[in-house]
Amino acid sequence: MIAKLNEKILKTNAPIVVGLDPTLKLIPPHILEKAYKEYGKTLKACGEAVFEYNKGIIDAIYDIVPAVKPQIAMYEQFGIEGLIAYKKTVDYAHEKGLIVIADVKRGDIGSTSENYAKAHLGHVDVAGEKLAGFDADFATVNPYLGVDGIKPFIDVCKEEKKGIFILVKTSNKSSGEFQDRLIDGAPLYEHVARKVDEWGKDFMNGNYSYVGAVVGATYPEMGKALRKVMPHSVILVPGYGAQGGKGADLVHFFNEDHLGAIVNSSRGIIAAYQKEEYASFGEMNYADASRQAVIDMRENIKTALN
Amino acid sequence: MIAKLNEKILKTNAPIVVGLDPTLKLIPPHILEKAYKEYGKTLKACGEAVFEYNKGIIDAIYDIVPAVKPQIAMYEQFGIEGLIAYKKTVDYAHEKGLIVIADVKRGDIGSTSENYAKAHLGHVDVAGEKLAGFDADFATVNPYLGVDGIKPFIDVCKEEKKGIFILVKTSNKSSGEFQDRLIDGAPLYEHVARKVDEWGKDFMNGNYSYVGAVVGATYPEMGKALRKVMPHSVILVPGYGAQGGKGADLVHFFNEDHLGAIVNSSRGIIAAYQKEEYASFGEMNYADASRQAVIDMRENIKTALN
Repeated sequence: MIAKLNEKILKTNAPIVVGLDPTLKLIPPHILEKAYKEYGKTLKACGEAVFEYNKGIIDAIYDIVPAVKPQIAMYEQFGIEGLIAYKKTVDYAHEKGLIVIADVKRGDIGSTSENYAKAHLGHVDVAGEKLAGFDADFATVNPYLGVDGIKPFIDVCKEEKKGIFILVKTSNKSSGEFQDRLIDGAPLYEHVARKVDEWGKDFMNGNYSYVGAVVGATYPEMGKALRKVMPHSVILVPGYGAQGGKGADLVHFFNEDHLGAIVNSSRGIIAAYQKEEYASFGEMNYADASRQAVIDMRENIKTALN
Repeated sequence: MIAKLNEKILKTNAPIVVGLDPTLKLIPPHILEKAYKEYGKTLKACGEAVFEYNKGIIDAIYDIVPAVKPQIAMYEQFGIEGLIAYKKTVDYAHEKGLIVIADVKRGDIGSTSENYAKAHLGHVDVAGEKLAGFDADFATVNPYLGVDGIKPFIDVCKEEKKGIFILVKTSNKSSGEFQDRLIDGAPLYEHVARKVDEWGKDFMNGNYSYVGAVVGATYPEMGKALRKVMPHSVILVPGYGAQGGKGADLVHFFNEDHLGAIVNSSRGIIAAYQKEEYASFGEMNYADASRQAVIDMRENIKTALN
């Protein structure tokens, strides 16, 4: 799957993942109103609107990006109905040939992580039948519990040829509160990064490991240092756009082969129609605005890389 | 809700939470077979079996413990059908008067954590209607992202009068890999504990804060130290029983009022019927075995505390 991701990045010339993070404020009114009319002001209506919205975006961008990254919290907020929309989104993205990165940030003690890994990347064995819960291609994982919490994900990934991105340095303002604290002279995030490199070394395909990392675009200097600590890991880079990361900040996250990083943008793409820059598309054409925002982001990154 | 939890602990004389962590290996064969017969070897069958199993246990223990703690990973493994069983379990536990601690270990950047908080403890605003996704009473939260990831949970808790337990020192073997590393002479988990104390100080009811902590029974010496760092936090203590924690280890997690800690046991209670000690109950009476295991655990803790 890591080879497929790199292949698709090269083919689309877009090291971009579109964050499918739907909240009610981002969904165009005509989609919401249609759902409310059909299902009332219910969680079911929210789930239907979320999927409708996502479907429009996927249809508009599936041929120009390699992957989408649904943030599961945005679906969980609507309970079961939201998670049905999440599952439909994963499946529909697959139908359109997209790679799906499940942004779930799970992580627990071993026996529990094993079940999260099965849920999002693997299969459960039901009296001999192998059945999949959510069946994404990659998942994000939290390292706070140490290797016990990571190993079951790696085991499932080896079986399924899928991958993970471990949180190293997150894009948010307070990420430094614990992650930047110095341990033996190096920040905690660097210790985590060294483990990412170690855990991923024997699970490679070509130059890249199935064990990737999350490093926020909002911390480009740290990205530069971390690129060297984890030379074989693909870095999933959130924080571009709405959170403040810029094209020029991204350069150091990439290796010389122009691979090794995939940049996420969520609101900047899925709600492009709400931005002045793309307002002329209009709410009805929100998906076209998203496509244009992807094209502009691709140019922005290309310019920065050359 | 923290006052209610303490009240119920005093009333039942049981600082115990039953971990509802169903895996197929723990569910008695007659329940599984019935579900397979009705729904085939499907995820739906798993969900039905899980709820049936949980219902039996809840019916057997609801009057002698204050709370249950479903570990959501065990439900997520079965996809949507598993989460339907999770939701039914939360609702049924509430019907029987139990407090529900959602063991979800969520945590993300601010805007995302806000949605997790709404999902598990709060409500979403759907065109003026306040609707709840999963509606538990407490949730476990991961601190790796710093205060940004915690604050939205606290905000929702203030609105809903609910609480959280932040991972401080987890019960697993490799928890020390990052959590024990020294920062300015104190382990990372102690820095997290200090923040737990700080974040919880202005959100109290009586002597206790709505912001609790998770500290594993498997690390009693650390529990002793952490008890002092967070005098007002209730400590959720996993790792008793199957993971190796013993009654005597628990003493130091409590305050002098015999409050301040609630001890989780999962497999040790829900699958008591599989243990030699309780085998005489038989598979059909698995729930009675669970009840006896709770009574024995209560005695074990009482003896240790006196």
